[in-house]
Amino acid sequence: MSFNTFGHMFRVTTFGESHGPAIGCVVDGCPPALPLTEAEIQHHLDRRRPGQSRFTTQRREPDAVRIVSGIFQDPASGAQVTTGTPIALLIDNVDQRSKDYADIASKYRPGHADYAYDVKYGLRDYRGGGRSSARETAARVAAGAVARKVVPGLSVRAALVQMGTETIDRTRWDWDEVDNNPFFCPDAEKAKFFEGYLDAIRKSGSSVGAVIEVVADGVPPGLGAPIYGKLDADIAAALMSINAVKGVEIGAGFAAATLTGEANSDEMRMGNDGRPIFLSNQAGGILGGISTGQQIVARFAVKPTSSILAPRASIDRHGRETEISTKGRHDPCVGIRAVPIGEAMLACVIADHYLRQRGQVGAPPSWPFPPSAP
Amino acid sequence: MSFNTFGHMFRVTTFGESHGPAIGCVVDGCPPALPLTEAEIQHHLDRRRPGQSRFTTQRREPDAVRIVSGIFQDPASGAQVTTGTPIALLIDNVDQRSKDYADIASKYRPGHADYAYDVKYGLRDYRGGGRSSARETAARVAAGAVARKVVPGLSVRAALVQMGTETIDRTRWDWDEVDNNPFFCPDAEKAKFFEGYLDAIRKSGSSVGAVIEVVADGVPPGLGAPIYGKLDADIAAALMSINAVKGVEIGAGFAAATLTGEANSDEMRMGNDGRPIFLSNQAGGILGGISTGQQIVARFAVKPTSSILAPRASIDRHGRETEISTKGRHDPCVGIRAVPIGEAMLACVIADHYLRQRGQVGAPPSWPFPPSAP
Amino acid sequence: MSFNTFGHMFRVTTFGESHGPAIGCVVDGCPPALPLTEAEIQHHLDRRRPGQSRFTTQRREPDAVRIVSGIFQDPASGAQVTTGTPIALLIDNVDQRSKDYADIASKYRPGHADYAYDVKYGLRDYRGGGRSSARETAARVAAGAVARKVVPGLSVRAALVQMGTETIDRTRWDWDEVDNNPFFCPDAEKAKFFEGYLDAIRKSGSSVGAVIEVVADGVPPGLGAPIYGKLDADIAAALMSINAVKGVEIGAGFAAATLTGEANSDEMRMGNDGRPIFLSNQAGGILGGISTGQQIVARFAVKPTSSILAPRASIDRHGRETEISTKGRHDPCVGIRAVPIGEAMLACVIADHYLRQRGQVGAPPSWPFPPSAP
Amino acid sequence: MSFNTFGHMFRVTTFGESHGPAIGCVVDGCPPALPLTEAEIQHHLDRRRPGQSRFTTQRREPDAVRIVSGIFQDPASGAQVTTGTPIALLIDNVDQRSKDYADIASKYRPGHADYAYDVKYGLRDYRGGGRSSARETAARVAAGAVARKVVPGLSVRAALVQMGTETIDRTRWDWDEVDNNPFFCPDAEKAKFFEGYLDAIRKSGSSVGAVIEVVADGVPPGLGAPIYGKLDADIAAALMSINAVKGVEIGAGFAAATLTGEANSDEMRMGNDGRPIFLSNQAGGILGGISTGQQIVARFAVKPTSSILAPRASIDRHGRETEISTKGRHDPCVGIRAVPIGEAMLACVIADHYLRQRGQVGAPPSWPFPPSAP
Repeated sequence: MSFNTFGHMFRVTTFGESHGPAIGCVVDGCPPALPLTEAEIQHHLDRRRPGQSRFTTQRREPDAVRIVSGIFQDPASGAQVTTGTPIALLIDNVDQRSKDYADIASKYRPGHADYAYDVKYGLRDYRGGGRSSARETAARVAAGAVARKVVPGLSVRAALVQMGTETIDRTRWDWDEVDNNPFFCPDAEKAKFFEGYLDAIRKSGSSVGAVIEVVADGVPPGLGAPIYGKLDADIAAALMSINAVKGVEIGAGFAAATLTGEANSDEMRMGNDGRPIFLSNQAGGILGGISTGQQIVARFAVKPTSSILAPRASIDRHGRETEISTKGRHDPCVGIRAVPIGEAMLACVIADHYLRQRGQVGAPPSWPFPPSAP
Repeated sequence: MSFNTFGHMFRVTTFGESHGPAIGCVVDGCPPALPLTEAEIQHHLDRRRPGQSRFTTQRREPDAVRIVSGIFQDPASGAQVTTGTPIALLIDNVDQRSKDYADIASKYRPGHADYAYDVKYGLRDYRGGGRSSARETAARVAAGAVARKVVPGLSVRAALVQMGTETIDRTRWDWDEVDNNPFFCPDAEKAKFFEGYLDAIRKSGSSVGAVIEVVADGVPPGLGAPIYGKLDADIAAALMSINAVKGVEIGAGFAAATLTGEANSDEMRMGNDGRPIFLSNQAGGILGGISTGQQIVARFAVKPTSSILAPRASIDRHGRETEISTKGRHDPCVGIRAVPIGEAMLACVIADHYLRQRGQVGAPPSWPFPPSAP
Repeated sequence: MSFNTFGHMFRVTTFGESHGPAIGCVVDGCPPALPLTEAEIQHHLDRRRPGQSRFTTQRREPDAVRIVSGIFQDPASGAQVTTGTPIALLIDNVDQRSKDYADIASKYRPGHADYAYDVKYGLRDYRGGGRSSARETAARVAAGAVARKVVPGLSVRAALVQMGTETIDRTRWDWDEVDNNPFFCPDAEKAKFFEGYLDAIRKSGSSVGAVIEVVADGVPPGLGAPIYGKLDADIAAALMSINAVKGVEIGAGFAAATLTGEANSDEMRMGNDGRPIFLSNQAGGILGGISTGQQIVARFAVKPTSSILAPRASIDRHGRETEISTKGRHDPCVGIRAVPIGEAMLACVIADHYLRQRGQVGAPPSWPFPPSAP
Repeated sequence: MSFNTFGHMFRVTTFGESHGPAIGCVVDGCPPALPLTEAEIQHHLDRRRPGQSRFTTQRREPDAVRIVSGIFQDPASGAQVTTGTPIALLIDNVDQRSKDYADIASKYRPGHADYAYDVKYGLRDYRGGGRSSARETAARVAAGAVARKVVPGLSVRAALVQMGTETIDRTRWDWDEVDNNPFFCPDAEKAKFFEGYLDAIRKSGSSVGAVIEVVADGVPPGLGAPIYGKLDADIAAALMSINAVKGVEIGAGFAAATLTGEANSDEMRMGNDGRPIFLSNQAGGILGGISTGQQIVARFAVKPTSSILAPRASIDRHGRETEISTKGRHDPCVGIRAVPIGEAMLACVIADHYLRQRGQVGAPPSWPFPPSAP
């Protein structure tokens, strides 16, 4: 993680501003011979795409991705596959609404990165948030679509589990519902409730936060690079790097602080297939920074959109006190579209660690292990 | 963050196992001409050192640090200063109690990294947890003592704010109390309560989790490397890399999910000194991944120690089901000693970003800014 | 230097294949507020552009660069400047001649990367050399144009000093001649000679190697990150990474092996301006991996183009013996166009180390130094 | 390569000064389960150790290495093996001769790093060259001993092929002679000559340069990370980072510039074992930055020791003109001891790329390839 690149073996560099000609990314270090098409990437981009319901920004972007490099026809199968060279992905910006930015150009929206960018760099591209816009996350989703190809059998899914103070009923969790409502909510009943709930917030010109849960199945045991490239440390950084995220937890997370050692320990038994099983998953699939083969479970908290209608006290870049009220197209709950982004980031981290583990140790172990046990 | 190194400009590499001859670290990229003595580092190590109360492990380690390289006499002042070359710090292990590890060598403690290390590497140093031992964190505290020197005016402090289900009363927060009780607790009254609370847990052979809050004052605005080296992303990784940590949050953190945009926005005004002030700090001092000059506030959750007396179901490395009960010297609440560790990690991240910002942009800005404003 | 990215603070990632839709790069970590236009970058690209004389490949590429991100209007001056966010540069491929690649697709050109890519990745984009094509170097030249902006007062120039066995007469060195002949040769008389010399080689379907000298003036003293990011080590890697380069030397280079200590030592005196001067420059401006403020001088050797008309014994990817003769458009001396590429790589390395030094140590020292001397 | 660390997967960090208490390194990312003993490392250190003949510095250092971390008893074999955690190696400094450094402390030896360190950092440890001392290279040799274990079947050897203007007769090359003379010279006859040659130089208080050739056998094809982590680029950086090195070349090297395309091309045929063979090795085993399976051949030029008896004009740190004559213990040809250092650096680079290739692509290919060929 440095500047605009993350990953050690599977590396992603993104570029682009909200209102520039295009955004995109370069995925480097990807293994060769993985089948990859624009359609597959587009599938994931379409889930993040704005303007698909009244609950997300009305900016109309097709988010059509082009693969600029890094793929070629496999001589054996004839399929389009990765070549091992950098995969550049380009997404044109289409709906940069022309408007007068004079107001926002010199004022700082409280809770937004406006002030921070100005104080850091001495200037900023203020059109639509520039580089700090959530638009950049489209590039992450595109990269994540490539990452999903890297680890055989990997499945990464996410869902919205809380909006404002309202949490879902986990007994009603149904993955099939996630794409059936505009909130990526696995609880169909709660999703119905959220419609009215968020409509009220939206109409009042306000916004609200959310909590997203991301889970990965099929993660080989042994991934993670202790001590400072721990799988959970890299997940924490990856999720925290998403716009508006203020908290990340793994497994029991903050609730683990309230538990006793007995309650927190995930006891182990031998499964019928001769492989070890865990009787619970407080650890969220990671111990000592290393995957155990259990489902990886992470959650992250997204703050409410800072661009709101209600006037807020602020200053401008000349040091004058002012008020600001944001009237443009914005997500009333930016956490919703964070669902596919969280999936993408987790997929990238796991792909990276899969290659790192294969590099350092070789093929992932197969049970019974270790082979050297007498 | 990769393997056993973290940081981009201010880089820390640690090494060593719990029961090897020594542990230590190499601090690389440190600016030259900073006064540095072993005594200053020792001060911080002493706060983390075990065996100072009945509430931490009874292992007796002096944790005496030696500076092996990277310092020299300043020709002008005669003081011992950093030279800009790598600072190697060495801490001998003294109290590696000789005992029969036959039991733990082949069994996996539930909730511990035992299984994960074995499945990753095919073998592990099981003496005292080997590399996964919290003993490694002494090296972090030593590195953090160096990091504190890097940023002029920086102050990093931490405190325990929750143990188990018991939280402190923030209205009684007194920094001066933190070093007056064995829990680094800023609430003297609650600290009294914790004595009995943790004694009961300790005597029952159980353990409990905790939440630690870390704050940094005097952080220059403009630190942070968007998009993938955001200050909060690096803090999240740094804190999550501490043993037993399961969650990290910045500012309002998970509570931000419950807020409206109005409630979450930190409004801005001009202070009497001509510098901007914020009317609240939900952001925890970071917007868009960049420091704003406000106090940086982070919290992390530490799970209960997994080495407990109560017998737990487990397996051994030969795939046999077994039970395990850990009788050795252990912290009933490993979260306590995480307080100076959290400080060290935050100091290292801020030092790193201070150098990165100075590298990319030059000297930190001074208000009024930006100088180029017409 | 890792995969397709180089640099630590000033980081360049390139992508693209010879016959894909486009090539390009992302320049990350660039300081903000540097004036930057497409025209300035284009100037350097035009010097590397093929098809400008009969001595380079006849492929016709305008190499028109577009700045996709990372620049914005400076609020003060109104000029287009860098923002500190990633600068993405895109160059469309235009003249990908449609032809039958069946022959080259399965055969390996001796001396070319064909075999190596196939044995590494198991497949390759064989159209025009794919990723291994010298076409990728256009992206380096574009990045170098940005790098030149980073260090105030920096000037980086290069020239061809040897072609085949023929070396220039250094007493006739005239920088003004470099852009007056198709060889970037500073010796006008030798340049005349090279016309006939290379014509004969070109007409015979053969090729020849060259040596390029790169010099940088205005390099602040103190740049370089010992021990493993030495300025000369990074220069060596950067120049060796250019296609077809087989050797790199600094200052006296290989000739230094023949010298005595007396002959090799660059004695020092005080200049009239109160700054130290060196009486010679065997060191090429670098001592202990650190710039001294003298002119930096590096040379690199470019092997002859491996794509030649003369039939060579080879094998194909099915393990059958065969012959190969390359008839396409190729440079008879690929070293010629390496001149602007060498400049670009040196500029990037110096810019990177300038930011690293500013990060670790702060502002570059001014003579008399050190300020702390009693 | 950054600051005091190199390598991407197999990472080496060194620390220590010539006259501090110890020097050492941390080897991180090493695969687990590799047998490793102090004796094996010591073997290589002993070859680099000073004071073994009158042709190297008379400083007496046992260079006894201690493994501080990263090894443990293999549960199956009982042998001491790597664990996959960082391997810290420590070498105490023993013979730091106490002397008055007042003279050298403020004067700059021409051709030495004295001035460069002072101008970079504003101060330096001047005792024995401090961090810039060749003593640091002992840590490289120790790391190289670990690296040699990583790649099955790898053999890395080096030899001195030129001293001053005198080159060996390559027809007399005999690897068995290399350890039979004090020069690591493969030409026994020339080695005899060098005795008198270097004695004369030594007695006159002068010094002389050298050229070292390093070769690696058993390198799997496919190693190298184009475009900016090319195997030859990383080798160039690694060798150039050795003290006093001024030039690096691969295969035909600078001579390649003089060749025609025909002469330079390494033609390919099928060997009797069904694997491809090359009819020559102008490429030095690397094409397009990727190993071909041929022997890797690199050479580097070492300048003469800058610490000489002959008085040289210089300045001191107060800007006064002065003369300097170095009387201490020094190598008359520092290139001699560079032989085992060159081996170590090449071994480290190859080990690193072996793990990187295994990470990105998986197991190295076996001929016939590629498996997907129809």
